[in-house]
Amino acid sequence: MRSLIESIFVRGALADPPGQIGPAAMDDGAALRLGERWLVLTTDSHVIQPAFFPGGDIGRLAVCGTVNDLAMMGATEVLGLTCAIVIEEGFDCELLARIQDSIDQACTEARTSILTGDTKVMGRGEIDGVVLNTTGIALVDEPVRDAGLHPGDDIVITGTIGDHGMAVMALRHDLELGADICSDVAPLNGLIGDALVAAEGNIICMKDPTRGGVASSLHEMAQKSGVGIVLAEKDLPTRPEVRAAAELFGMDPLQVANEGKALIGVRPEARTRVLEALRAHPLGRDAQAIGSCIDEHIGSVILDTGFGRRLVTEAEGELLPRIC
Amino acid sequence: MRSLIESIFVRGALADPPGQIGPAAMDDGAALRLGERWLVLTTDSHVIQPAFFPGGDIGRLAVCGTVNDLAMMGATEVLGLTCAIVIEEGFDCELLARIQDSIDQACTEARTSILTGDTKVMGRGEIDGVVLNTTGIALVDEPVRDAGLHPGDDIVITGTIGDHGMAVMALRHDLELGADICSDVAPLNGLIGDALVAAEGNIICMKDPTRGGVASSLHEMAQKSGVGIVLAEKDLPTRPEVRAAAELFGMDPLQVANEGKALIGVRPEARTRVLEALRAHPLGRDAQAIGSCIDEHIGSVILDTGFGRRLVTEAEGELLPRIC
Repeated sequence: MRSLIESIFVRGALADPPGQIGPAAMDDGAALRLGERWLVLTTDSHVIQPAFFPGGDIGRLAVCGTVNDLAMMGATEVLGLTCAIVIEEGFDCELLARIQDSIDQACTEARTSILTGDTKVMGRGEIDGVVLNTTGIALVDEPVRDAGLHPGDDIVITGTIGDHGMAVMALRHDLELGADICSDVAPLNGLIGDALVAAEGNIICMKDPTRGGVASSLHEMAQKSGVGIVLAEKDLPTRPEVRAAAELFGMDPLQVANEGKALIGVRPEARTRVLEALRAHPLGRDAQAIGSCIDEHIGSVILDTGFGRRLVTEAEGELLPRIC
Repeated sequence: MRSLIESIFVRGALADPPGQIGPAAMDDGAALRLGERWLVLTTDSHVIQPAFFPGGDIGRLAVCGTVNDLAMMGATEVLGLTCAIVIEEGFDCELLARIQDSIDQACTEARTSILTGDTKVMGRGEIDGVVLNTTGIALVDEPVRDAGLHPGDDIVITGTIGDHGMAVMALRHDLELGADICSDVAPLNGLIGDALVAAEGNIICMKDPTRGGVASSLHEMAQKSGVGIVLAEKDLPTRPEVRAAAELFGMDPLQVANEGKALIGVRPEARTRVLEALRAHPLGRDAQAIGSCIDEHIGSVILDTGFGRRLVTEAEGELLPRIC
């Protein structure tokens, strides 16, 4: 996916002009200097199948995905979102209203609103159900990036890993123990706002480990920063039922999608303060320092299992199609 | 479509908060006060079928559609666009690259660029080809609305009507005379910028007559403004081949989609200046004053055929599915 995007869609954008982040930066979104501040914007289309799953639905997912991408750039006060929907002809109007309710609810939680939208209908069989696009805008004094880590910096995660992907996977395969697994889909801007205040400028980079999971996001952070990242397996917060389901499916929770978690790269002196701020928030109770940056194995992610070390690989191809 | 959007998606938004236009206003986009200026944003998903047609393709359409919605709110200098693509697995990479070329080309014409994007893949048969979402942002001193017309105001169109819809329709039905019909898809921000300067504040409202054509857009303008609109049939600029094709299909060019035209409501004292400015621009050579506002038949559009008057109706349902 990344190579498709790079080869066709970012082609030619070798460097961003001054006062602009993106598209060359390939961060979670783009930023434009606007007077003294930056206007941050990000877009995502959502194609999740099924559209309703334990813990959420495509409406909640769309709002949270976009709010979280803004939050990952440090933009925690969202000016507003656009919402464009493409529906299959004959799609149940009651389901549509439920999706709209979820959109409203998630917007309320994220203290934002839908400013404008668009609706298109495709014929029966021309699109499977519903596709939602949300684009978000926010203002920030200085964007947080997804690079800039130095050896010695710490990696913090705001909670348990793999919940979203395993919830959808369990639902698709009608897994019995899956009944206990809920997607973590939630808007993180409030949580991240608290962490940024506590960090006093010591949060270097952030990324939300959605598609591709923690493994993919950490690889990108390591590659862009030019560091290696070592994770301590014992510190990875994973729910037992998620771990069990992942084992059944032969999957690594590190490669499974999350929709309500953030990876935060922080200078070591601020780690404790950031962890305290995260844990004081309902969405950050399970926050953990999970690893740190080193000056070898540049661009790689290494898992310290307690018995030895192994390379964490990125998923080949799309492990879970239509997971978001 | 409008009633679906109103019932489900704008539900509850009875009035926009101060310093905000949309979603209650249901204009071509939304606007937020940002210090001394307004940030305008608009979003559109594009599902046109086929994706390539005489005069353009889905990439050009997506960029122009969004640029034009911004222009209709008076925002003629586009800060940038987001572009999110949903592709069917197995979609031809060469076609994808051609779409990307068109996006680049249209951005150049509109003096803007894609700031950030998103790519999702759906399985074979889960989506028909490719769906593109573009969202655009721009700054403007004072947004132009799609209401505010008074009796006596003039209605100007920037060129011939029905070209886009008839080009796609002719292609779909393999119509021989269709070979001469080209979509008008083009970015209008340069043209509209010239008209706004010439009008010196006397352009009251604008709308681009896309889906639903001139008939639908004028109805919305008339209803929101609380006026009637009378069109002079002899002044409607229509290409002979478009008129012939429309007759063959039993369609009214007033109901057929345009993708490079604007309807401009202007105070009578500025009409001549606005027409001169439009005609001096390559995209406005065929601009015409086509009608004016009256204080009866409120909310209706009336066509003066020269022999009598008839009500112009809005198309029932979607005349041309997937026309944009």
